[in-house]
Amino acid sequence: MNKTTRQQGITIGGMPIGERNQITDVPGVTVGHYTLNNNRIQTGVTAILPHQDNLFQNKTVASAHVINGFGKTAGTIQLEELGTLETPIVLTNTFGVGAAYDALVTYTLERNPEIGRTTGTVNPVIGECNDMFMNDIREQAVTKEHVLQAIDHAKDHFEEGCVGAGRGMLCYSLKGGVGSSSRKVELTHGTYTVGVLTLTNFGKLSDLRIDGYAVGQKLKACMEAEEEKDRGSIMIVVATDLPLSDRQLKRICKRSVTGLSRTGSMIGNGSGDVVLGFSTASTIPHEKPEEAISHPTIHEEDIDEAFRAVGEATEESILESLFQATPVIGRDNHQRPTLTDLLESYPFKLK
Amino acid sequence: MNKTTRQQGITIGGMPIGERNQITDVPGVTVGHYTLNNNRIQTGVTAILPHQDNLFQNKTVASAHVINGFGKTAGTIQLEELGTLETPIVLTNTFGVGAAYDALVTYTLERNPEIGRTTGTVNPVIGECNDMFMNDIREQAVTKEHVLQAIDHAKDHFEEGCVGAGRGMLCYSLKGGVGSSSRKVELTHGTYTVGVLTLTNFGKLSDLRIDGYAVGQKLKACMEAEEEKDRGSIMIVVATDLPLSDRQLKRICKRSVTGLSRTGSMIGNGSGDVVLGFSTASTIPHEKPEEAISHPTIHEEDIDEAFRAVGEATEESILESLFQATPVIGRDNHQRPTLTDLLESYPFKLK
Amino acid sequence: MNKTTRQQGITIGGMPIGERNQITDVPGVTVGHYTLNNNRIQTGVTAILPHQDNLFQNKTVASAHVINGFGKTAGTIQLEELGTLETPIVLTNTFGVGAAYDALVTYTLERNPEIGRTTGTVNPVIGECNDMFMNDIREQAVTKEHVLQAIDHAKDHFEEGCVGAGRGMLCYSLKGGVGSSSRKVELTHGTYTVGVLTLTNFGKLSDLRIDGYAVGQKLKACMEAEEEKDRGSIMIVVATDLPLSDRQLKRICKRSVTGLSRTGSMIGNGSGDVVLGFSTASTIPHEKPEEAISHPTIHEEDIDEAFRAVGEATEESILESLFQATPVIGRDNHQRPTLTDLLESYPFKLK
Amino acid sequence: MNKTTRQQGITIGGMPIGERNQITDVPGVTVGHYTLNNNRIQTGVTAILPHQDNLFQNKTVASAHVINGFGKTAGTIQLEELGTLETPIVLTNTFGVGAAYDALVTYTLERNPEIGRTTGTVNPVIGECNDMFMNDIREQAVTKEHVLQAIDHAKDHFEEGCVGAGRGMLCYSLKGGVGSSSRKVELTHGTYTVGVLTLTNFGKLSDLRIDGYAVGQKLKACMEAEEEKDRGSIMIVVATDLPLSDRQLKRICKRSVTGLSRTGSMIGNGSGDVVLGFSTASTIPHEKPEEAISHPTIHEEDIDEAFRAVGEATEESILESLFQATPVIGRDNHQRPTLTDLLESYPFKLK
Repeated sequence: MNKTTRQQGITIGGMPIGERNQITDVPGVTVGHYTLNNNRIQTGVTAILPHQDNLFQNKTVASAHVINGFGKTAGTIQLEELGTLETPIVLTNTFGVGAAYDALVTYTLERNPEIGRTTGTVNPVIGECNDMFMNDIREQAVTKEHVLQAIDHAKDHFEEGCVGAGRGMLCYSLKGGVGSSSRKVELTHGTYTVGVLTLTNFGKLSDLRIDGYAVGQKLKACMEAEEEKDRGSIMIVVATDLPLSDRQLKRICKRSVTGLSRTGSMIGNGSGDVVLGFSTASTIPHEKPEEAISHPTIHEEDIDEAFRAVGEATEESILESLFQATPVIGRDNHQRPTLTDLLESYPFKLK
Repeated sequence: MNKTTRQQGITIGGMPIGERNQITDVPGVTVGHYTLNNNRIQTGVTAILPHQDNLFQNKTVASAHVINGFGKTAGTIQLEELGTLETPIVLTNTFGVGAAYDALVTYTLERNPEIGRTTGTVNPVIGECNDMFMNDIREQAVTKEHVLQAIDHAKDHFEEGCVGAGRGMLCYSLKGGVGSSSRKVELTHGTYTVGVLTLTNFGKLSDLRIDGYAVGQKLKACMEAEEEKDRGSIMIVVATDLPLSDRQLKRICKRSVTGLSRTGSMIGNGSGDVVLGFSTASTIPHEKPEEAISHPTIHEEDIDEAFRAVGEATEESILESLFQATPVIGRDNHQRPTLTDLLESYPFKLK
Repeated sequence: MNKTTRQQGITIGGMPIGERNQITDVPGVTVGHYTLNNNRIQTGVTAILPHQDNLFQNKTVASAHVINGFGKTAGTIQLEELGTLETPIVLTNTFGVGAAYDALVTYTLERNPEIGRTTGTVNPVIGECNDMFMNDIREQAVTKEHVLQAIDHAKDHFEEGCVGAGRGMLCYSLKGGVGSSSRKVELTHGTYTVGVLTLTNFGKLSDLRIDGYAVGQKLKACMEAEEEKDRGSIMIVVATDLPLSDRQLKRICKRSVTGLSRTGSMIGNGSGDVVLGFSTASTIPHEKPEEAISHPTIHEEDIDEAFRAVGEATEESILESLFQATPVIGRDNHQRPTLTDLLESYPFKLK
Repeated sequence: MNKTTRQQGITIGGMPIGERNQITDVPGVTVGHYTLNNNRIQTGVTAILPHQDNLFQNKTVASAHVINGFGKTAGTIQLEELGTLETPIVLTNTFGVGAAYDALVTYTLERNPEIGRTTGTVNPVIGECNDMFMNDIREQAVTKEHVLQAIDHAKDHFEEGCVGAGRGMLCYSLKGGVGSSSRKVELTHGTYTVGVLTLTNFGKLSDLRIDGYAVGQKLKACMEAEEEKDRGSIMIVVATDLPLSDRQLKRICKRSVTGLSRTGSMIGNGSGDVVLGFSTASTIPHEKPEEAISHPTIHEEDIDEAFRAVGEATEESILESLFQATPVIGRDNHQRPTLTDLLESYPFKLK
């Protein structure tokens, strides 16, 4: 494993991190990958499970926020209308969304025999980025089975970098992929965690900033490699055990843009930047109970710490995706430098 | 008082109505009017109070829904962001919004000396329609004092028709104004009320339908009066004591469009049709408590009855505004027939 | 073919209809079906093509409107962000969305070899309803090939009723399916067409109204059949050759709710009611031209006729889906009466 | 006048600036202030005019974007529905919104005698921040006349800092106010300008970053002054002569959040952060012409430069509001340091 952002001497913000500094610091959350690494095919699937129980029967409060809608994320209409998530979140390449949809239907049907008989259907939630630079995306290589495997592999400690859906991604013209980070939030009624996982595939090198420092311009000036045109995206998954309404969760999801911006993004036209969030504090039963539901939520005056947490964790998560990236050779021999390699060749002081 | 819609033999839908068949059937809700009736000035103010306690200190869950945004409703941005209402809702003519804003600030400052000192400001919520046909709206006749009087007059039984903000309004080319209706909702955990108040100022006669029957076309055919161009609006206020999240309340507010449509509206370009809703089931304290907040909400599977209730009550409320309307002579001797008068002259069987 | 709504003596609204009274009255628009009719499998696919050229290279102005988001419509995020449509619109059952996604990717890749090489990806747009009452939806019977066949079958005259995606649908507890209607809009600068296609799968019998008349309550009273619980949806596709911005088109799409409401819908919780619209008046090139783009659009004051047109056409389209429905026997011998059969048994005067 | 950001040696981004580096670099745009400076009353009004013709008769394409809706901005519902602006934009303190509404009505009535007679009403657009720390906001000191004076004072060169609406504002716990900046955008079909004006009243000192450098933490560490709680807001006005649809303009407005984030904002709960934008490239006539309207718009692939421009100009505009701020003594002797003074006392190298 590469050095982490913090091992590189970079500390984003001032809030305490969780035990693993990953989205899985939120209790119950697990992440699984399936990686396709076969010449022209450099792609994969990453699945995030909010909890380990039946997700359809026990939905989590959820929200989505579209920073820039040039993207094909599936499932947001219902997620927004009902404020709930009832499947794992699957991330993959743009042309894997169909396979992921089928897989999440199959996954849920297997666990819920009443669907399509005595109860309605299920809403698969899928995010995507376009990994066409590395991956021969026209092959539509991701299958339903790959997605089911990624879900099956989910555990509380997971690899970052060029694995799963991150396999073929580029970020700031460097090798991108999967990153994650977390923050602890202290309120009068408890200590909570906000975790973020990002699939990074956006930006151009000259815009990259690390904790404010315009390292991208320095690197671009001294290296030979040209920038790749910014046509990518970022998927941001936010998990928390804070007790929240879907409206509050949406407000928190929106603040991930502060972290994204601070790494240098201008939120380009072609970048489908989407945030998907869930809170595990309570679950909403699929079947209607006799009584009204009573779930705790924070007071709005307590939300600022969560805003700060998600901004910090998003910024660090993006940097982690860069620092954890490893060399990949893709279709037509395409490759991009990793940030770790570049910084070894051009050793700037990062702070 | 004119005959009500039901006294005319028209029953909208099948759900039971509340005691008064008014928005004030929701416990705690009161409504007050201030009417300006002075030659060219035929306008006024209608205020809806969600409860009788300090609204700034004890906010209600609230939501807004814009059916058509050609209108000047104030306060929706914050109401949407926070999901709460912290002032009375004031309805008036389009150019009275500034006076109503000032009045709601003054009203709230008087009751909350800490505003602007140790706590922030307040978000006035104001709806409006353009009564320029009857009223010399260029005079900007509504003042802060008129608005404060309307609030002061609020009580649980209130007049409908050409009073308050309804004074100068037209609806379906006839005299419009204020209408109201309510429905009872039975759930396993209690009996609740959904109440609606409408300020009607939209539509053209040939589109009018009463319980499905195209009476407008018949009336237009036999009477002499030309139609007035549809340039009006409708303000719909939804009150309930159902325990709801702001998201659920928004879904309910959206369904008022079914009732609006069934009276014949095509939702014209110039019609600023806006819904403002609140639930009195719980209040949100302005000051942050030590503990998380725990409010009951209904399960989503219970919401259909509220959808039906708001559709029925909106439809009946619009009809009430027509049936309760009384003759008004406005600027330049402008006047419009009332539905009651028309039906006496041209006695169609309404069912 | 059954009698049409108009042949039944029912005329919705007062605007003139197009030549076929179908969505394909908008020049260039075609519709194709693929129907699966095999014991437990009663489902299918319906495809709508905005024009007959390369849709990816020549995008149409487009918009979406979510009436109720309890649904899995794909592709709306990008359609909203960019205001363009670049694939056929595919309608199918809820668990066919994955197959439709794959099919639209394949369809577009075949016609655009530069995708995934020198240009980005494509945004498939797919609507769905849940046909589980008739169809064994758990079988996930719709395949990519079925979808490609539906697209391939598209022509300017098409069948309505229980064909394509409409095969297994229910509407107002009766047999539903595909319906269509159109209206002519006269403006000073030309005569235009607004066409609507609906996939109807919502409502309960007692709510059904035909041109305002509460026929559903009459039918329910005299027939034996119980109502099916309302858990369905409606997909509304709006096509026009009016020159529109995406914002104007969205406003028009929103007005389809007036027609929906007038057939009796309360817009139930479980009904994923979504509108997808496009204007064929101009196309937006995928590749950037040297000069700024200059497309005509109507003045906002001209939009009322389009509002009326879409309301009327939606209402008639829903009725058409009922009148064109034919008997279907589905899984576990499930069946529902058709409106035509019912009215023969219980001959109410409909006007 | 204080040194500008650039005179301080700080260059934000790499795009060329306009002649004045102000929003008024967009041809036709003017800005006027009215400042109240009288012991406890430290507040004012700032007006932005999109062009010098009759704004009601010749509307500009416009859009709004709510970053955080804890605010009372007026006029956004109609601006969003119709995509047009028809009054000057007025900025003032939170309790001045009513006076500003009245003033904009009066201003427009004076110039348009047909309003309220043969045509409808007007939609005043007003933004606000809460200046209660410096200003005795409970006095509701801003009057209609002050607002009309601010509009009357509008010219193409204007003062920044603690003038007009900026008089009593705080930013990053320092003295804030009005700032402005602009960028030139080169496209194949012309050179355009994006201008930004900000009214800054948000943030806490420890978060302040100047071109990435965490100067706020340094300043906080060495100075005595405690931070003021972040309860403020930012109003961002974006002007451009780029030919844009309202949808494109909205996308551009959204990108101002990148500049805001890079100055260190976490977008706090209490900060009503709202963007109002307009394009002067074409005007929309109030009265309907015979022919369809044909306005040029850029191709979406050209929008990235505008995204970058608005991000850079927003970031620099916020810094300008800090660098142009001058000492103000407000109610109860409240005062805050200016950035210029602080940097003289604690001379950090800013780059």
